[in-house]
Amino acid sequence: MNDRKLITPRKLSGFMELPPYKQVVFDKMIEKIKNVYQNFAFMPLDTPVLEYSEILMAKSGGSIDKEVYAFKKGDTDICMRYDLTVPLARYVAMNVNEIAFPFKRYQIGKVYRGEKAQKGRFREFLQCDADIVGFDELPIVADAECLAIVDKVFKALELKILNHISNRNILFGYCEALGYKDKTQDILTILDKIGKIGKENAILELNSLGVSIDDCNNLIMLTLKNGKFCDVLDEIKDLTDNETYQKGVNELSEIYKYMQAMGVDENCYILDVGVIRGQNYYTGTVFEAMMPEHPEFLTVCGGGRYDNLAGYYTDKKLPGVGLSIGLTRLFDLLDQAGLLTEYKLTNIELQIIPLGDTLYECFKLQKFFSDFLVCDVNYENRSFKAKMKEANRKQIPFILIVGEDEINSGLYALKDMNSGQQWNLAKEDCLKKITEK
Amino acid sequence: MNDRKLITPRKLSGFMELPPYKQVVFDKMIEKIKNVYQNFAFMPLDTPVLEYSEILMAKSGGSIDKEVYAFKKGDTDICMRYDLTVPLARYVAMNVNEIAFPFKRYQIGKVYRGEKAQKGRFREFLQCDADIVGFDELPIVADAECLAIVDKVFKALELKILNHISNRNILFGYCEALGYKDKTQDILTILDKIGKIGKENAILELNSLGVSIDDCNNLIMLTLKNGKFCDVLDEIKDLTDNETYQKGVNELSEIYKYMQAMGVDENCYILDVGVIRGQNYYTGTVFEAMMPEHPEFLTVCGGGRYDNLAGYYTDKKLPGVGLSIGLTRLFDLLDQAGLLTEYKLTNIELQIIPLGDTLYECFKLQKFFSDFLVCDVNYENRSFKAKMKEANRKQIPFILIVGEDEINSGLYALKDMNSGQQWNLAKEDCLKKITEK
Repeated sequence: MNDRKLITPRKLSGFMELPPYKQVVFDKMIEKIKNVYQNFAFMPLDTPVLEYSEILMAKSGGSIDKEVYAFKKGDTDICMRYDLTVPLARYVAMNVNEIAFPFKRYQIGKVYRGEKAQKGRFREFLQCDADIVGFDELPIVADAECLAIVDKVFKALELKILNHISNRNILFGYCEALGYKDKTQDILTILDKIGKIGKENAILELNSLGVSIDDCNNLIMLTLKNGKFCDVLDEIKDLTDNETYQKGVNELSEIYKYMQAMGVDENCYILDVGVIRGQNYYTGTVFEAMMPEHPEFLTVCGGGRYDNLAGYYTDKKLPGVGLSIGLTRLFDLLDQAGLLTEYKLTNIELQIIPLGDTLYECFKLQKFFSDFLVCDVNYENRSFKAKMKEANRKQIPFILIVGEDEINSGLYALKDMNSGQQWNLAKEDCLKKITEK
Repeated sequence: MNDRKLITPRKLSGFMELPPYKQVVFDKMIEKIKNVYQNFAFMPLDTPVLEYSEILMAKSGGSIDKEVYAFKKGDTDICMRYDLTVPLARYVAMNVNEIAFPFKRYQIGKVYRGEKAQKGRFREFLQCDADIVGFDELPIVADAECLAIVDKVFKALELKILNHISNRNILFGYCEALGYKDKTQDILTILDKIGKIGKENAILELNSLGVSIDDCNNLIMLTLKNGKFCDVLDEIKDLTDNETYQKGVNELSEIYKYMQAMGVDENCYILDVGVIRGQNYYTGTVFEAMMPEHPEFLTVCGGGRYDNLAGYYTDKKLPGVGLSIGLTRLFDLLDQAGLLTEYKLTNIELQIIPLGDTLYECFKLQKFFSDFLVCDVNYENRSFKAKMKEANRKQIPFILIVGEDEINSGLYALKDMNSGQQWNLAKEDCLKKITEK
């Protein structure tokens, strides 16, 4: 092979690839999220990464978004999924007669967006989604259930969050009451970016839409209302008797009631009228969870209610509510901030090191131990000293040294690498010693 | 949305998409495989699905295999991975200075092959791979370790297998001894398909290569040797003193020795000289596990030893040994054959059904129960009778009926849906009753 030109090994930029000791921690986070979803009686779905372009691009009438990975295979136009919601819509529409509603599914899978590579942006990232889809109708308690899940998931991850909750009907109704019904979407777009462009620029933009200065101020004042759920709800509930607005108020008080019943930690959510979320498909509850100790992480989990999941594919009305965690991004942020402290170079709990020609006996011992713990045999052609040094570097907690003498006596040299203590024990006693620690 | 033309929801053919109650079982199989890999001290790696075409297509000098999904994004030639071995080679070559060898990694991920769609062939399928990669050298015990993993994995999956093991040096050396060294690869290709083309056609093809009829018969006779490991090893060990051949014999007796030490079930493997495996990169141990009760499943797990993992990307010599399970195909076969009997329509262990306006209290009860089991509240707008019928259909084991009376008394109606028994109990006693069963 040496006369062939070597190809420099490299991976595409914008694709996360963790060293195994970090991947272990990433996988544990997935496990925790999955357990919470399952505990709320969600079932898994695993849709293909590839879909017909026509299906994935239904929203834009078939024209392919620049960021989407799209290609032709034979005569077929194919796209890589860019989220898990459109595939869910396709799945539900396709299987609407077989599905028992409300359909509670979670999906943990990678999605693809060929965005400009930049720090913190990934082209392949893992989404952890949970959605509840109803047939014709879906009670508002489902929204509260999703909010309870958010609470539980981040408790399981041991991350402190504050979930900012609102209901789009509040701002929809308020715009309507002020007489700007036709401009609602544009107004919301501007209000959504107050944080970025500042209050004054927002007023300028709103004003140029035809919103009076008084109304601009009222809208912005409303948008800035946030705090303890019941307090803010009290403050805003009578601002207008517009029907849509009152629908929002009612839904917010309903989810508040049920969140209390479900025991959602009151320190971990607020009512924040400023939460809008860009996507137009949200029609009621919306939420964005942030980490108060790390506001620079921005939204670490978001979601909301949509009236009609699969309108592009079916006439059936399928309302839903869901949440989504972008785990690749979250993990990267936590890692960069030095908040992941569980890293261990190996999962080995006991390593057997042969002294002399004892490999055969070492594997017999491994068989015994590995029913109880992660045990491997160091069969490398290196010196005993080098092996001990490596075991130390990897922080393997226990080492079993097996030479001829040990085999003859049936007493093995067990070393606790943390304390430095060493014992000569029968294998059963070694096991006892290790599991005690 | 009703005036818009609907797009018929459909998915690409050749892509598995399981209903959630089947996905649960699929995920459990992944879990079991992963646990065994971890127990043998393997660590996870998760490489991107997309790679530079130049990297993935190094073997064919950059020309793209028809079955590979390849496309351009901007100026970049990209391929979807078609296996997990080439990405492993790329990863190891890229990170050779950071990796501690022997490098034991597992990867469970989807790979893509745009093959002609046909029954049992998938274009997206999950591979469960475990490999051990050494630097410069890797002791033969590593091969035995992989074989022990195969044994453990299928025991964990509760599937009976017979692992057919051989060593390519046997046939390499035998060809050499007969004087056909230059034609070894062609001879092996023909021998590999005896099962398909039959013995007579194989002789014809070998003969047309220039192999004498006597040698044809000897080669085929050797290839057909299979059975109890030690017996076959005894039979073949002195057929020739060719060095390569004897290397094969020695390696086979070494792995046999270590498999015994590791306690690999002797009923679950044989020596089968006919195991060749198509891929040219195997250089020593090769194995293919079949299910004796379902020979039509063909190989359900395969693997072997390769001398040089990453020769296209680095001058470093990186020998390895590994195994691979194609879980999508295996699951499909088991499912088709009716061998998957664990299917349950739901994971709910207790469902709370409100009677009247008790939803608030129901969620308080759910909070209590869900610390111990999967408990949901049925908040659908359907009749009590319809809910009970649905609970029955889904085979939810326990139902808790919560009306005003129950709330006032603190005694809830718990129904065992299997026995039909019903009790009125405090919530703690309900929990006791359920966990007893």
